[in-house]
Amino acid sequence: MFELQATDGRARAGVLRLAHGEVPTPVFMPVGTRASVKTLDGRDLEDLDPTILLGNTYHLYLRPGTGILEGAGGLHGFMRWKRPILTDSGGFQIFSLSSLRKLREEGAEFRSHLDGSRHVFTPESVIGIQRSLGSDIMMVLDECPPGTAERDYVIQSLQRTTRWAHRCHRAWQDSEPLYGHRQELYPIIQGGVYGDLREESLAGLLERDWPGMAIGGLSVGESKTAMREMTELCCAKMPQDRPRYLMGVGTPEDILESIDLGVDQFDCVLPTRNARKATLFTTQGRFSAKAARYKDSFDQPIDPDCSCYTCRTYDRAYIRHLYHVEEFSAMRLGTIHNLHYFLELVRGARRAILAGEWAAYRDAMLAPYRGD
Amino acid sequence: MFELQATDGRARAGVLRLAHGEVPTPVFMPVGTRASVKTLDGRDLEDLDPTILLGNTYHLYLRPGTGILEGAGGLHGFMRWKRPILTDSGGFQIFSLSSLRKLREEGAEFRSHLDGSRHVFTPESVIGIQRSLGSDIMMVLDECPPGTAERDYVIQSLQRTTRWAHRCHRAWQDSEPLYGHRQELYPIIQGGVYGDLREESLAGLLERDWPGMAIGGLSVGESKTAMREMTELCCAKMPQDRPRYLMGVGTPEDILESIDLGVDQFDCVLPTRNARKATLFTTQGRFSAKAARYKDSFDQPIDPDCSCYTCRTYDRAYIRHLYHVEEFSAMRLGTIHNLHYFLELVRGARRAILAGEWAAYRDAMLAPYRGD
Repeated sequence: MFELQATDGRARAGVLRLAHGEVPTPVFMPVGTRASVKTLDGRDLEDLDPTILLGNTYHLYLRPGTGILEGAGGLHGFMRWKRPILTDSGGFQIFSLSSLRKLREEGAEFRSHLDGSRHVFTPESVIGIQRSLGSDIMMVLDECPPGTAERDYVIQSLQRTTRWAHRCHRAWQDSEPLYGHRQELYPIIQGGVYGDLREESLAGLLERDWPGMAIGGLSVGESKTAMREMTELCCAKMPQDRPRYLMGVGTPEDILESIDLGVDQFDCVLPTRNARKATLFTTQGRFSAKAARYKDSFDQPIDPDCSCYTCRTYDRAYIRHLYHVEEFSAMRLGTIHNLHYFLELVRGARRAILAGEWAAYRDAMLAPYRGD
Repeated sequence: MFELQATDGRARAGVLRLAHGEVPTPVFMPVGTRASVKTLDGRDLEDLDPTILLGNTYHLYLRPGTGILEGAGGLHGFMRWKRPILTDSGGFQIFSLSSLRKLREEGAEFRSHLDGSRHVFTPESVIGIQRSLGSDIMMVLDECPPGTAERDYVIQSLQRTTRWAHRCHRAWQDSEPLYGHRQELYPIIQGGVYGDLREESLAGLLERDWPGMAIGGLSVGESKTAMREMTELCCAKMPQDRPRYLMGVGTPEDILESIDLGVDQFDCVLPTRNARKATLFTTQGRFSAKAARYKDSFDQPIDPDCSCYTCRTYDRAYIRHLYHVEEFSAMRLGTIHNLHYFLELVRGARRAILAGEWAAYRDAMLAPYRGD
């Protein structure tokens, strides 16, 4: 399923062959939380040309629910997206959004953040839900402790996450896809900011064979140094012939530094969420699109080096006006730009790795974001 | 500037020749309040293919302000719209949005609904502002009393509106466009629900020559019968060789009935505003896109007879989900559909009038909206 095509230092270029198509790596996966990349439609996505999207199991399970999704032929049919989709397991949202969660060996009981209703996610049930979603890559149920969690708690938590991963693996092997296409499953390495615990987590997971692996529990409040150290350690020990997915990361700087350590897959809400708050990413660094100083910046796009629809069409003065008067279209035009930036950043990384010019590309793209 | 091409009963088909292009009539003008049709971008507008947009002088004067608009080369340059634009004079918004307005013979003093700052609009200043906007059709400053206003007040008000119209006409004649293209000016017939006052208003305005005329002060709280009677009376007395614009109207039913009386131009926030509240217009009547009964309406678009992007791409179940979870894209996809419906309704009316099949078209399109 994964072919490693080239390396340049520790940076890797490869290709994931999934049921709905090929995904060249490294890859940035835009987040389509509730069967939609926020503010965008299918035509916008065709223009932006991502090769894979991410969907959130927790949100989709609550609304529209698996019954509706099965009726639509899965998430692909529901949102009319023909390329691959990766879904998380909902674990992260249980811990970040829901209330009154109770963790037992069996699974996690939680209350919906929407209406307070009670639900239970087990390793087996999240595989079942992801079968209903029909994602190309499913994720195991995990617990993601905060970046500041005590060592004793992290030990207990990662060991349960490992046991849950084995149960997910069995449920995956023992169940069939609902729509006739292959669904992969990735486990998640936990262990907080403790190197030996990360190793213990990885070793436990490697008792089984997986088509890819994820690093979880980073970018959740720990220091940048700790994040980098844990990523480096995991990448050094993870199988070379499997894709590596660093969950929920990150800034342009984080992504470039993690590609440098050997990560292949990324997802993050940063480009979409920040666009809704008028923070745009450019080849010159971060850009506050609402700033009064851009009010008469005519004929200058957000990023002169960008070829997205927004930059091809509008100047800073107009985009600043739309944000200033709080038009929804500002959020959408900003989202188009930010996603284009992130997708192109990572596509550029792949081209550089294949050309043996990774270090120069990394340094050039990092420069405007250093110390950001 | 206006060529009457065909009539079918009292219904008319013609063409407006404006500085930025030709506008076949009857025509529906989408509302682009703040230099943007809410939720849409320029590409969406290209697809929907309206021949003319409406901009709101009051809003644009406050934000981004005439300085910015002049820097951008007018509203066309600012929002990158190459076809004609009509701007209102701001009179309506002074009375519907701002507070503490003081009406004097000189003009209207008001406080901004945004920050309470004081401003004065005079007949001369609104021509100046619309020169800065560079609209193809400018409107005179008028007072629009509520549909329930007393006769004595309406008399006083329409007489002032007539005097203001004459001052606007002089200011138009005595000033030059800022961007080298021709700008037309329409006066506004007032007179509330009183037929003789409507006639007095029209007679006073016709002391001067105008490229077109508008009927104002309708759809502001009066009965449907009164609206229809006033429109009929005005149309009977307005010059045959000039375009007639019924301001702020209306529902599909209102538009069809007004075309039937001889109206040529329409604008209304209904398709855009209602789309943001999940009310969609279809060839089968109004449609509440949020209704739970559509949650598993797969493979059925909002309107099976519609060729808009939304209906070509998504089913009711998905659109219902997007509204249900309150994704911004629901509002945009609904706006695309509703504007397509209104534009196509009026384009269809024109085709029917040219073909001598107006009555049949009117009745067919009215049927699902009768008694709505």
